[in-house]
Amino acid sequence: MTVLDIIAYTGIFVFALTGAFKARTFKMDIFGGVVVAFVSAYGGGTLRDLLIGIRPVNWINDNTAFILVFAGAVFTFFLKENVNRFKRTIFYTDAAGLGLFTAAGIEVAMRNGLNELYAVIMGVITATFGGLIADIFCNAVPNLFKRGELYATACAIGGFIYVALKHTAIPTNLNLTICVVLVMGIRIYSKRKRLMLPDI
Amino acid sequence: MTVLDIIAYTGIFVFALTGAFKARTFKMDIFGGVVVAFVSAYGGGTLRDLLIGIRPVNWINDNTAFILVFAGAVFTFFLKENVNRFKRTIFYTDAAGLGLFTAAGIEVAMRNGLNELYAVIMGVITATFGGLIADIFCNAVPNLFKRGELYATACAIGGFIYVALKHTAIPTNLNLTICVVLVMGIRIYSKRKRLMLPDI
Amino acid sequence: MTVLDIIAYTGIFVFALTGAFKARTFKMDIFGGVVVAFVSAYGGGTLRDLLIGIRPVNWINDNTAFILVFAGAVFTFFLKENVNRFKRTIFYTDAAGLGLFTAAGIEVAMRNGLNELYAVIMGVITATFGGLIADIFCNAVPNLFKRGELYATACAIGGFIYVALKHTAIPTNLNLTICVVLVMGIRIYSKRKRLMLPDI
Repeated sequence: MTVLDIIAYTGIFVFALTGAFKARTFKMDIFGGVVVAFVSAYGGGTLRDLLIGIRPVNWINDNTAFILVFAGAVFTFFLKENVNRFKRTIFYTDAAGLGLFTAAGIEVAMRNGLNELYAVIMGVITATFGGLIADIFCNAVPNLFKRGELYATACAIGGFIYVALKHTAIPTNLNLTICVVLVMGIRIYSKRKRLMLPDI
Repeated sequence: MTVLDIIAYTGIFVFALTGAFKARTFKMDIFGGVVVAFVSAYGGGTLRDLLIGIRPVNWINDNTAFILVFAGAVFTFFLKENVNRFKRTIFYTDAAGLGLFTAAGIEVAMRNGLNELYAVIMGVITATFGGLIADIFCNAVPNLFKRGELYATACAIGGFIYVALKHTAIPTNLNLTICVVLVMGIRIYSKRKRLMLPDI
Repeated sequence: MTVLDIIAYTGIFVFALTGAFKARTFKMDIFGGVVVAFVSAYGGGTLRDLLIGIRPVNWINDNTAFILVFAGAVFTFFLKENVNRFKRTIFYTDAAGLGLFTAAGIEVAMRNGLNELYAVIMGVITATFGGLIADIFCNAVPNLFKRGELYATACAIGGFIYVALKHTAIPTNLNLTICVVLVMGIRIYSKRKRLMLPDI
């Protein structure tokens, strides 16, 4: 396992935790918790794989993926508290996960022949559509589309910079770091300054 | 670009407009508006491609597709009015789009080896499931299944006639025109006469 | 047609009936009834096929599939009563369908190279995600994730036993029967004893 794998699996674990807490908010049982946790962590990448035509989708036969998500749900189960106590921690880890997933989605898309515009779109889908599908499973109004802090926008900006820097001599690891820092920075700044997109 | 392409992209633009207005109704921000517009325009064809196994799905790397949808969302954004003023225009362009998408979906399905029954089903999915997915993204009760004017039914009738006429010597362009006129006619007639399907 | 085919199509018909009744509960028209019936019957297997990468999905060009679902919707249409009168019957046939679909999903998954853990996951998805997608189409809170009797859990237990018994000399038909009986048994027992999973 490389450092990158560890970071990626950390992102998965955090997204799974967010999903499990969401399931608790909607009074689901533990099966629902595991499903919503899995969808939160892997839903975006799954949709990307389906649209591009990668088969089977990436998590098939990946036992670590299932164990991580299951562990996230069990952890949430034994932690008889709600998400509020961890809101601060989750905000930062979620922001890091967003940046990471955006870059990972872009890499997968470009390796499969997508142009730069659609690679960034796939990066944003990878990072943000897991939460959207989880909201749909919970029959909740998707957070992703509601006016609020910059979320998908942060991924899109980070993604376009990432793609632009691929044309330079910057090594991939540094580029990835820039992408993550940028997405986190935009998230934090937009939260502090209450920046948001205008309504349609 | 052929005349057919122009008509097809007009259909896409109109479906995107409808989606952007729907997003406004649900108080989304402009990112949500673009996503719901895209899903309204391309969701049905995407589902068809996934079910048939066409990969990647048709709009991947199609920059015109993205620009059209984006333009539709931006147009809606600057037009600070609601959908009511355009209801009449949208009704007719939407009806034309329905007929066009039905025929296009049938052609794609038959080229990929589907039999006539399933080709018509794919035509109806192409024309109507984008709105369904958009409704799901908005957490709205899908219009498609509610009692109301004939909508999917108009596509199904137009589709069956289109498939039947393919057995005759009628040229494809004429057949396409008949399909569009038929779907529009059924939509207009059913609206005037308040025809609707019975409840299940 | 083998005995197995007959059992499988019976399961499909029962799942379609459940879907049509669900559509009636949500005051849909007959088109909505057919779609929700189809999704209830084939939605789980469709998602499994998409995730594994089987294309086209299994029901494409299967006219019997469409006729069965259509017949289920028409049957429901002429039966001007609600689901309550048949609750008891539907409970048992649904439970048999669950066991059958779990085993069928596992077989398809293993033939396509999935390991045992993911084969069982695909079995559970095949058996239970049709109802989930139907609930999403109806804009209902998914039953699947709500505290209640054991449902997906029954499939998971039946599925793990089925996979374990594949390592023994037990013939497939007997193994299938054991799986169905087990799933039905757990469903009936959990209903009587009001067993349920704890909340997440």
